[in-house]
Amino acid sequence: MSDKLIGACIIAQSGGPTAVINASAYGAIKAAMEALEITEVYGAAYGITGVLNERLYEMGKEDPEELELLMQTPSSALGSCRYKMAEPEDNETDYARILEVFKKYNIRYFFYNGGNDSMDTCCKLSRYMEHQDWECRVIGIPKTIDNDLCGTDHCPGFGSAAKYIATSAAEIYRDLDVYENGSIVVIEVMGRHTGWLAAAASLAGLSGCAPDLIYLPERPFDIQRFTEDINDVYSKKKRCLAVVSEGIHDADGAFISQSSISENDGFGHVQLGGLAGTLTDALKRRMGAKVRFIELSLLQRCGAHLASKKDVEEAFMAGSDAVKLAVSGESGKMIGFKRTYEDGRYLCSTVAVPLEEAANAEKTIPDGWINAAGNYVTQEFIDYAVPLIEGECEIKYQYGLPRYARLKKIVKRI
Amino acid sequence: MSDKLIGACIIAQSGGPTAVINASAYGAIKAAMEALEITEVYGAAYGITGVLNERLYEMGKEDPEELELLMQTPSSALGSCRYKMAEPEDNETDYARILEVFKKYNIRYFFYNGGNDSMDTCCKLSRYMEHQDWECRVIGIPKTIDNDLCGTDHCPGFGSAAKYIATSAAEIYRDLDVYENGSIVVIEVMGRHTGWLAAAASLAGLSGCAPDLIYLPERPFDIQRFTEDINDVYSKKKRCLAVVSEGIHDADGAFISQSSISENDGFGHVQLGGLAGTLTDALKRRMGAKVRFIELSLLQRCGAHLASKKDVEEAFMAGSDAVKLAVSGESGKMIGFKRTYEDGRYLCSTVAVPLEEAANAEKTIPDGWINAAGNYVTQEFIDYAVPLIEGECEIKYQYGLPRYARLKKIVKRI
Repeated sequence: MSDKLIGACIIAQSGGPTAVINASAYGAIKAAMEALEITEVYGAAYGITGVLNERLYEMGKEDPEELELLMQTPSSALGSCRYKMAEPEDNETDYARILEVFKKYNIRYFFYNGGNDSMDTCCKLSRYMEHQDWECRVIGIPKTIDNDLCGTDHCPGFGSAAKYIATSAAEIYRDLDVYENGSIVVIEVMGRHTGWLAAAASLAGLSGCAPDLIYLPERPFDIQRFTEDINDVYSKKKRCLAVVSEGIHDADGAFISQSSISENDGFGHVQLGGLAGTLTDALKRRMGAKVRFIELSLLQRCGAHLASKKDVEEAFMAGSDAVKLAVSGESGKMIGFKRTYEDGRYLCSTVAVPLEEAANAEKTIPDGWINAAGNYVTQEFIDYAVPLIEGECEIKYQYGLPRYARLKKIVKRI
Repeated sequence: MSDKLIGACIIAQSGGPTAVINASAYGAIKAAMEALEITEVYGAAYGITGVLNERLYEMGKEDPEELELLMQTPSSALGSCRYKMAEPEDNETDYARILEVFKKYNIRYFFYNGGNDSMDTCCKLSRYMEHQDWECRVIGIPKTIDNDLCGTDHCPGFGSAAKYIATSAAEIYRDLDVYENGSIVVIEVMGRHTGWLAAAASLAGLSGCAPDLIYLPERPFDIQRFTEDINDVYSKKKRCLAVVSEGIHDADGAFISQSSISENDGFGHVQLGGLAGTLTDALKRRMGAKVRFIELSLLQRCGAHLASKKDVEEAFMAGSDAVKLAVSGESGKMIGFKRTYEDGRYLCSTVAVPLEEAANAEKTIPDGWINAAGNYVTQEFIDYAVPLIEGECEIKYQYGLPRYARLKKIVKRI
């Protein structure tokens, strides 16, 4: 592998959007534009499918001020996809097509910004490229509100989702606290197999508005126990705020929401939903109190107006350092975060993680960070998460609404 | 009625909370503390029930800095209630009790901060007090995210809810726009009989993220027509963002959500819910696309982190001017807002509105502000609403979360 590799680069976004995925894209675009080795900076339309379909936007033709607004623009500005590539050994078609496009556009650097599944795509592509007559360095940029990627202290996107969830939980707590005889509110947050997002609701306690109960997929969920817990809290306080992860499941691993399975996404994951009905019914049968179910839904992953400043800065750094890493000669790596403390002050730097380590594995909450009853997190989790939600961005507004990047998206024609 | 009336005052909050109801409370508390005529400032615990139960907090014993934090603290800090008082002619018990408490605590000023039902309470109490041997001036301070009070250009609380709804709609639009083959998202917002909040989603267009369709209770809702509308949009764009008011109803006035009526609140209103199932099922039957239903629920009324600066300022002014109005000798009035324009710049001042005018009537969206098809608003609505969502507050954060007022709530003992 030569140290000085001259050519164009592609930046692509994949998987579910986050509040800061575009900050990573901007970090990568900016660093790529500044890198002497990189001749052209392309953005792929709709993730890897933009490469397959030869739809590459010329980022150099965008207005620099609009590009900078990517720092406060939620959800994949280039478009995303949920496209699962076969193992190259099983079916080479997509890989051969990608190689063809890479050669045609002189692509020597490929940056893929996504979560577990995208790191899998990235990993396969990287392995494939190693055996071709075309050098192209492949680097993964992590992104997931779920915070479940291995090889990194945390993931860009989590801090902002956590801040959104904690702030919303605090606001709902206050709303609930208003009547003398309050009600029961259950908030559902995302998290298919890991409870990082549900756990983040505990941070509302920093505002004096801690939820009473939090249920994570890391522990088996017992609906009887859940209604007892809520009944206990309600008996004392005349109100109760509980938070559940969408991925809660019984001791046999069956999702509590499973009765309402309807669709599968492109990766064969079960599409969750319908927890509301199951839990609300159970509570109403057990107790007379009014029950309200609030699903934070898409809001928690696109709430850029409330992004964590730390998260935005780190997301930018992840994109920027990915480019620097590739230019320095590395390939087949994902950018990871390493946490250190200096005089008690949280610091974050990037490390290069082998893609194999990050792809397709899921990092769960350490067992010791969940209380013995399995219905809350411990102080260790809070200490871990607080630095990630700190700081507020100076969002640019126009007519009272956040001003988003408006890209021209000029497709390169060769 | 004497011009100079010396005595204590009570400030009470009622009805559903908003993001800025405490800004009004702070406006009233601050003005009352500064008024030479007012000897003591009490906050009633849980609205009028705090008067009936003789639970009056001494606001003068609160830390001034904590009181100031009311400006960014959502949901009734003093507690709220949904207590409907009988007509004094039918049952005088509550009124006699209130009079007793007023005399005991030397209450000469009573400020009630709430929506339609609270203005009704305020109106009855005001009429009752006029015929007693105890002068007490009664002033209503408007509050409702629904924006449906008569006698005022708009209501404190609406601007912040509108900003929250519009920003959330814009963020969801961006999330929806991410995949090449998108999905259908239906957002449900509050609004029992009026569509001001649903209409506010149109403001997302100022961010380039306008919803495709908006359905208001001002026009009869036809589910067949709704699915046709969405199908038309989806056929062209491969995605669709629709917004519905919780209060949509058919031509006979039956709520679309009526099949899932479960409870009544204290005022005998039908408790709405369950629109999600009805509309999602209809769309899935008609089309193959993925449908997601997002209910903004309590979030839209307590999102103080995203409050409109204009709304916060005006809410404060409403509270403050209520006190000034009472001290000047008025009673039986509600503070209303009057809009003027100076060189095209929006200005807002307060006016005194007879309580009778505001109580129990609901102001709907003018017919001409809804498009002919009944599935969107016109530019007139947008021009009306934009000034109300403008400006962002400099929220004080601690540990990455908004810092809320922590009141001591010391109950006065006599």
